[in-house]
Amino acid sequence: MGLPMARNLIKAGFHVVGVDISQQALNAFAAAGGVVASTPAEAIHCADTVLIVVVDADQTEAVLFGNDGIASALAPSKLVIASATMAPSRVAAVADRLAQRKIQLLDAPISGGIRGAAAGALTVMVAGPDDAYAKAEPILRALAARVFHIGKQPGQASTVKLINQLLCGIHLAATAEAVALAERAGVPLQVLYDIISASSGTSRIFEDRAPDMWSVNPPKKAAVDIFVKDLGLVLELARTTQIGLTLTPAAHQVFEAAADAGLGRSSDSEIVQVYRQSTTRPDTTT
Amino acid sequence: MGLPMARNLIKAGFHVVGVDISQQALNAFAAAGGVVASTPAEAIHCADTVLIVVVDADQTEAVLFGNDGIASALAPSKLVIASATMAPSRVAAVADRLAQRKIQLLDAPISGGIRGAAAGALTVMVAGPDDAYAKAEPILRALAARVFHIGKQPGQASTVKLINQLLCGIHLAATAEAVALAERAGVPLQVLYDIISASSGTSRIFEDRAPDMWSVNPPKKAAVDIFVKDLGLVLELARTTQIGLTLTPAAHQVFEAAADAGLGRSSDSEIVQVYRQSTTRPDTTT
Repeated sequence: MGLPMARNLIKAGFHVVGVDISQQALNAFAAAGGVVASTPAEAIHCADTVLIVVVDADQTEAVLFGNDGIASALAPSKLVIASATMAPSRVAAVADRLAQRKIQLLDAPISGGIRGAAAGALTVMVAGPDDAYAKAEPILRALAARVFHIGKQPGQASTVKLINQLLCGIHLAATAEAVALAERAGVPLQVLYDIISASSGTSRIFEDRAPDMWSVNPPKKAAVDIFVKDLGLVLELARTTQIGLTLTPAAHQVFEAAADAGLGRSSDSEIVQVYRQSTTRPDTTT
Repeated sequence: MGLPMARNLIKAGFHVVGVDISQQALNAFAAAGGVVASTPAEAIHCADTVLIVVVDADQTEAVLFGNDGIASALAPSKLVIASATMAPSRVAAVADRLAQRKIQLLDAPISGGIRGAAAGALTVMVAGPDDAYAKAEPILRALAARVFHIGKQPGQASTVKLINQLLCGIHLAATAEAVALAERAGVPLQVLYDIISASSGTSRIFEDRAPDMWSVNPPKKAAVDIFVKDLGLVLELARTTQIGLTLTPAAHQVFEAAADAGLGRSSDSEIVQVYRQSTTRPDTTT
């Protein structure tokens, strides 16, 4: 995810210094014209803005406050943009910790995945102070097709991102149920796809993921574990706001069942296996 | 639903004789140039093709085989097109019963709702013999923007329609969870709409129904009871094909809870009330 975003920044004329734990990603980044650093602390020497594109809050905090972390080395007035999907309360806590060092944080989660990043077709949701947003805007517009400044409080953008993940996770499980039921009922899958895509039941996830569920060699997309994590964060937000949800915990269960079956690092569309393996006796209700 | 479809047929030059239990619908139909009959049996005197647009299998069977039913009066070689959402096995049984009188049935459920019907933007899924399909095709193309001939066995199209309803029902409940959670978390709803519509979490249902959930006076759409029925049919199909589903029964519960709360005849987007009224203690998991 970080690599295609870095490529877009280089194309837009930014000087980009990059760090990654994957040597393969660094090689590709260098080939695209990026400057490779070996630690986050080394990468920020001449940086005005730090963009952290990692998986979760733990990794974000490790980049900022861990060994080789950058927070202690960042000059005040620098800007940090955090793009991992995190609990809103956790983003707010990171912002507070950085504020003690006079460093501003933009809460800037992203929707669109690796393919969206490669195509410059991402959507980025941003929350943070107006001056920080103004400073980051040229960078964000080089990365994403759509940039939304939601509000001034870090955490507000992560809240919207979690609601997007709620919908994606449910839509993925719904797509898997639709595909598996169609298979059992003998519906030709391409016919199903053509009809649903033109009907009220369609979703962006259905259109993108349903064909992966019957492809022999589907492209690698987000992992099952991502949705175990993200739907867990949605459920945490639901508890905090004291609302009882029904489909979100059901979808979370489906992803957990897939992870328990050894599919945690497989693409999220592999959750269809959970349904393919399911059997009920004809006399029981589901 | 029948009225805008009849209007489109009249516009396309067909001679249309109509029956409805609503006098208001009949008045509007007559104003559009339709010929009003008082019973189904009266309507079929000079009809080559009978199009039955009712809510369910019971109503379809009543039109065909009930008092004033038309099956006994229909000459062999006439064609019946049945568009209600029904269990595939029930459609097959109706086809068998009509076949004893040498009458052909096309299984032709529709997606797109009243607004789609008015705009001529429906999708129709069709299953039935090739010669019956060929005869019906000009009629179907006058009604719908997209016509899919799925197969020769009545019931095959209803299976695909049920899978569409599975997705719509889940997407409606997912949209309600997203909207209710956004309200609790203080996300401005128009901002939520603009971002989700441009992100991976979007669906046709979200784009159409989410604004209804916070509108003061939303347009009337399909009723909550329709999804209680249709998701019930999906669960019946799942039992028949011995597959265990997770989200479909959860969505069915949400619609049943809304119906139990007196919202059965309200628009389906009113299921958001179930979530708005929900409270959990902060120390419990949802």
